[in-house]
Parts: sequence; C-alpha cells; structure tokens
Amino acid sequence: MGEIHAIRPEEPIVGHELAGGVLRLTLQNPPANALSMAMMQLLLDHLVAARDDRAIRVVIIDSAQKLFSAGHDLKELTAHRNDADRGRDFFEKTMRLCAELMQAIVHHPKPVIAAVDGLATAAGCQLVASCDLAICTDKSTFCTPGVNIGLFCSTPMVALSRNVSRKQAMEMLLTGEVIDASTAREFGLVNRVVPQEYLNPIVRKYAQTIAAKSPLTVKIGKEAFYRQAEMSLTDAYDYAAQVMVENMLARDAEEGINAFIEKRQPEWKGE
Amino acid sequence: MGEIHAIRPEEPIVGHELAGGVLRLTLQNPPANALSMAMMQLLLDHLVAARDDRAIRVVIIDSAQKLFSAGHDLKELTAHRNDADRGRDFFEKTMRLCAELMQAIVHHPKPVIAAVDGLATAAGCQLVASCDLAICTDKSTFCTPGVNIGLFCSTPMVALSRNVSRKQAMEMLLTGEVIDASTAREFGLVNRVVPQEYLNPIVRKYAQTIAAKSPLTVKIGKEAFYRQAEMSLTDAYDYAAQVMVENMLARDAEEGINAFIEKRQPEWKGE
Amino acid sequence: MGEIHAIRPEEPIVGHELAGGVLRLTLQNPPANALSMAMMQLLLDHLVAARDDRAIRVVIIDSAQKLFSAGHDLKELTAHRNDADRGRDFFEKTMRLCAELMQAIVHHPKPVIAAVDGLATAAGCQLVASCDLAICTDKSTFCTPGVNIGLFCSTPMVALSRNVSRKQAMEMLLTGEVIDASTAREFGLVNRVVPQEYLNPIVRKYAQTIAAKSPLTVKIGKEAFYRQAEMSLTDAYDYAAQVMVENMLARDAEEGINAFIEKRQPEWKGE
Repeated sequence: MGEIHAIRPEEPIVGHELAGGVLRLTLQNPPANALSMAMMQLLLDHLVAARDDRAIRVVIIDSAQKLFSAGHDLKELTAHRNDADRGRDFFEKTMRLCAELMQAIVHHPKPVIAAVDGLATAAGCQLVASCDLAICTDKSTFCTPGVNIGLFCSTPMVALSRNVSRKQAMEMLLTGEVIDASTAREFGLVNRVVPQEYLNPIVRKYAQTIAAKSPLTVKIGKEAFYRQAEMSLTDAYDYAAQVMVENMLARDAEEGINAFIEKRQPEWKGE
Repeated sequence: MGEIHAIRPEEPIVGHELAGGVLRLTLQNPPANALSMAMMQLLLDHLVAARDDRAIRVVIIDSAQKLFSAGHDLKELTAHRNDADRGRDFFEKTMRLCAELMQAIVHHPKPVIAAVDGLATAAGCQLVASCDLAICTDKSTFCTPGVNIGLFCSTPMVALSRNVSRKQAMEMLLTGEVIDASTAREFGLVNRVVPQEYLNPIVRKYAQTIAAKSPLTVKIGKEAFYRQAEMSLTDAYDYAAQVMVENMLARDAEEGINAFIEKRQPEWKGE
Repeated sequence: MGEIHAIRPEEPIVGHELAGGVLRLTLQNPPANALSMAMMQLLLDHLVAARDDRAIRVVIIDSAQKLFSAGHDLKELTAHRNDADRGRDFFEKTMRLCAELMQAIVHHPKPVIAAVDGLATAAGCQLVASCDLAICTDKSTFCTPGVNIGLFCSTPMVALSRNVSRKQAMEMLLTGEVIDASTAREFGLVNRVVPQEYLNPIVRKYAQTIAAKSPLTVKIGKEAFYRQAEMSLTDAYDYAAQVMVENMLARDAEEGINAFIEKRQPEWKGE
C-alpha cells in the first residue's frame, strides 16, 4: 500500500461524505473526471484511511459530472514527454499508482460499490470493474478505447477481463466501441441498471444492507473471495475450509447463528 | 477420498435408487435437508461406492422435501460450542467433510446432475454448483446468506465463483439475497429451468442421454475437463492432446468412429 | 511454431485473398471442411506467413461450404489404425498440429475473426472459440459431439471452456447437443449473430475498424491480453503496467494521443 497521506478535505477533486457507516467518495474533477495523479492519490488516500476506520462499513464511488470518468489525464501524461527521459519515469509512476489504487479496492476490507451515471472510459471503466459491486443508470456507457489513440487499454483489461468473458472483452478492447448499460450488465461488468432517479436510492439500499452485516464477517469473506479465486480447486477448498472454521469461532458468528436460531436480530461487535 | 463405509440402505436421510444405469440420490432429511455430518457422510459413501460400479453411469442428486437443501446443520454445529475446544475440532471435521464431498462430485468418474426443486441455500447452493449439470424448476431459488448470520459462505463460494462471474457472485455473497431460477440460469449456476411437472422427465432424459455414451469416454472427458481448466493454455493443450491420443486408441473410440462412418449404432464396452 | 512452408496458392482447400490489409482465409474442403492434416497445415502456413507481413493487419477465417467445419477428418484418422503402431504416431501428429494451429491464432500478432455460417463441430467449434472475435449467421450451430462417437472433445474443450462457463460447456461436451446461434452468443462463444446476407458486410466492417488502428498497438494489446489472463491479479498488474509504459513510449501512442488532443486523424507508422 502507498504511504498514508493526510486527507485534504479542502481538495475538491474527490468529495467525501460519511453517513450511516457509508463513505461516499465523489469524483469531481471537471470536465472529464480524469484520473490524474492527484485524483488517484486522493482516492487512494481516502481508501487507505478507511481501512481501519470502524465508522466506515461500505464505500461508494460515484461522480458529480455528467460522466463517471474518462480515465487517465492525457494532457498530464503528454506534458511529461518533454522530460529528459521522454516521460518514462512519470509514466511508470502513473501506471504504478493506478495499479495500486485498483488493487486497494480489491484488497480493501470493506465492500466498494461503483455508482455510475454516464460514460466510464479506459481507467474509468477499470475503476468500475475493480469495485466489488457496480450499479449504473440506463444512460451509462462503457468503453476501453485506448486502441483508438495508439495506447491499448492494457491495465484496464486486467480488471475488465476478470469481469467480462474473453470474446466480449476482446471486442471492447480491439474495436474501442462503446457498450450501453444493459450490455454491460449482460457482460457482467455491472450488477444492475436503473433509471437515473433511482441510482442514489438503490445504491444507498445496497450500501445499507451490507453495512448492517457483521463487518468482521464481510472482511473475512471479501478477502477470501479474491484469494481463493486464484487457487486450484483443492487449494481453494483447503484455504476456504480453514477460513470458515476461524469465522465460526469468532464472536459475531456465534451471535449471528444464535440470533438466527432464536429468531431475533443479531448484535454485531465486529470480533 | 474418505474411507468406504458400507452403504446403509435403512438410513432414510439419503434415498437411493438405481435404474437404467442411473443412480438417484435423494436428500430426505426433514425439515430442511440440512447437510449434517451424517447426511454428508452418507452422500459421500454413495458416491465413493458408485465410482467403480459399472452398473452406474450417471448420478442424479435430488430432494424429497419442498426445498433442495438449506446447507449445514446449524444446530449440530452450535451444539459443539460446548466442547472443550469451543467446537474447533468439530467445525474442522465438518468443513473437511464438506470439501471432500464437493470434490468427490467434481472428481467422480460419472457425471453428476443436480435436480433442484425449491430453495438451495449456502452449502445446498454449493452442492448445486459442484454438480456437472443442474436442472431446476421455475419455483427454485438460490442464495448464499451466511453473511446474514455472521458466517460468510466461504466454502460455498469456492464452487459458486467457479460457476458465476465475479460481480454476480459478490452480490449474492455480500447481500445474502435470494435469486430466482431464471437469474440462476442467466448467471450460469444452472443449465435449464423447467416447470415443476417437467423436472423428472427432463432430468431423466439428460441422464439417459449421457448413460447411452461410452462410460470410458465420459470418464476420460470429465476428468480432463476439470484438470485442464486449472492449466495455462499451453499446458492444457499439451495435456488434452495426450488425452485425445489415448482416447483414440481405446476400443470404444474405434467402435464409435466405425459406427459413425458405417451409419450404425455403436456398442460400447467401456474399454 | 511450425516450420514455415511455402504457401501453395494452387491448393484449393484453403482459399486466401488479401485486400485492404485484411487476409481472408476460406475453408473449402468439401463436403465438410474437415480439418485434415493438409487443411490444418495450410491454415498454419498462412498464419505463420502473415505474422510479419506488414500488409496484413487482420485475418478472417470463413468457409465456402454450407457449413463452417465438421472438425477432424475421421476417415483420415481411421485409415491409420492399420499402421504398425495402430495409429498412435499419426494421432499424436494430428493432435499436436491441431494444438499448434489453435495456439497460432491466440499468439498471432494480428486479430483473427471467425466468420461462421452453418455448423461448427468439434475442432471446427474449437477453431471458432480460438479466434479473438467470432461473428455468425442466425443459421449457424455449434457442438462438441465427440462423446457420441466415443472420442471426447478433449482438445476442443480447451478453447471452449475459455469462452463458455462451466455448466454450459459441460452440457455441450457431455450430451453432444447442438446449440443455436443465439445460445452461442449468450454463452460467449460468438460476439454477434446476424442474418446471412449481413455476415460479409459486418465482418468486413469489424476487420476494417481494427485494420485502421495502429498495428503495433493492436499487437502489444493482444499479446498482453492472453498473457495477463493466466496471471494472478498482482502479477497481471505488474506486467500490464510495464506493457503500458512501453506502449506510451512508442511513436504511435505519441502520435495517437497528439491527434486526439488536436482533434485530427492519427497517422500510424507501426512503431
């Protein structure tokens, strides 16, 4: 993980708001919500700060513009072509920070939900793919159009190809074509497509539903999900069985199972 | 594999019936067809006994209750919290047996078909996911709701995430929500959804179709399917090409290809 | 890769035609476009010759018969049962060549599009699955029916199972059943289903769209796609980030990004 920078609440390009255990991070970097270095670092800072903050149970990433995000900041990247090394060092820093941000979502102990309204392009599409869940409006569209500008969406495809099947991912990557919201749902890139006025209530409903679970249980399960996904079946079962035993011995599982048997609401302590 | 226990035909919690090369194992452990230790062991015993039984060509797992299975027996698990080790040993035995049962299906030389009518929850959903094929009624529903009781469905997700794409699996696991039959088909958890009165005839049709193939060929192919799925493309081709050569040299392939060229029915000898 | 054989343009079983940067390879081996040794070798020869041919930017594989391909040449295989080794050596050569051909598509620096009209069976279905993109007519059908003749489709399933989810692939492999075009699209085996009279125009449109991209960028991206797909998330990001940096430093990315910022058409040099 990156160093923990102090959160700069005066910084406007990522809004943040905490209510009811739900941290809402809002991309607001006009005009295109470009994932500039500053934007990625600030998002990462918020995510890192949220890791051990017991007040935060779920993270939402949404946007304030008429699009979700157009991906990397091409002007920022291009400016560094004048560096002595033709930009290599800056490009490496950018790609490393991008990879760190995306993996910080996957490895985050709290579920991260993308709330998408409008276009999600390239690294913006990758951001959606990297979240645990994604809900979008029926006006939303998605693409990985790097191939159109000579820069294949190679890091976006790491996330995309772990959501979308091969031929469908290849079509997006080779043609750069835009897919609509219902195609994105069919492909597995988003969980749900809703009318625009329903986006916030439905995302809030998902967030509240998950925030009401035991945070310990959610953390154990999310971590195990992504770890076992990379294992052979035998290794995955050996690992998951052990995770399950430790989970059973935690106080929250005892409370949850007792509450279920006694037909009452559980009281989580997160331990 | 577990030790081979004698099959106890008087035991009522798993029914078994052999007809026309098809072994039907019926979950009948009222009220919820819970996968208690006894239930899992008995299912495993039947599967182990069926491995080398030439009279059995296909296995069906169905249920006698108004649901398929509600997963682990929570009362049985909870009772062991009073053990000196707070249940650790019993929980480990349970999870190991569960993992062994599910892998016994995947590694079984004969295809295993889940015939689902009603709710399949947690390890019950895992049982469906672990079968080679699954047919369900339009009244069937599926969920992995462990998160609701503080016990994430970590072993069920091993099977679930090998059937269902990431965001969709994550939604089931994080929210605990119930999905209906047609959603389960769309997600890839079941092959087909049928009206209730069609379940038995259609499952029987699948079973008979597969039972009419060369058992040797089916065994070779099923084993190769799951093995190559965990390999790199190059390794998978090296392995599958060798499997194909050995298969070509078997008597049943010679007979099958000759029968095809001569436009007659093949006679399998299983060698 | 295999040795580079001279292309034999007089050979009729694979037609070839180059126009506008698009190489069209046509299966024309009546009656069933069987993938005989000669057919596979010729396809491979064309693909190998196209690797470094800068005039070729995209490859299309289509067929001249009323079907796409019925897979291996069973009569050719069967004839070798009279060899001293009962055919083992010939079967090995066949399976090795088949695996080499399919991997030559995956590893080809240029995108390969299957244009399917009619039946694609066994290794014919594998050929479709191995291409980067596949467009088919609404009259097309797909199956892996080796199980019906005692010879499980073990090499076809390597490609099939990397396109189609487990239960769906297993159903095709265990039953040998034919699926229609729209099912193939739903399963992820093809990208698009079109009326027969639209097949050529639409495939041409895809090919032209991709041929208009920087060939260097397409090559970098296609190679990275299949390589990262076999890696853990961390390794995939480390690798893809490095690919992206090198891509940024290539002349075509600089040109493409400048053209985008300046709102003009890029001029690719492929470097």
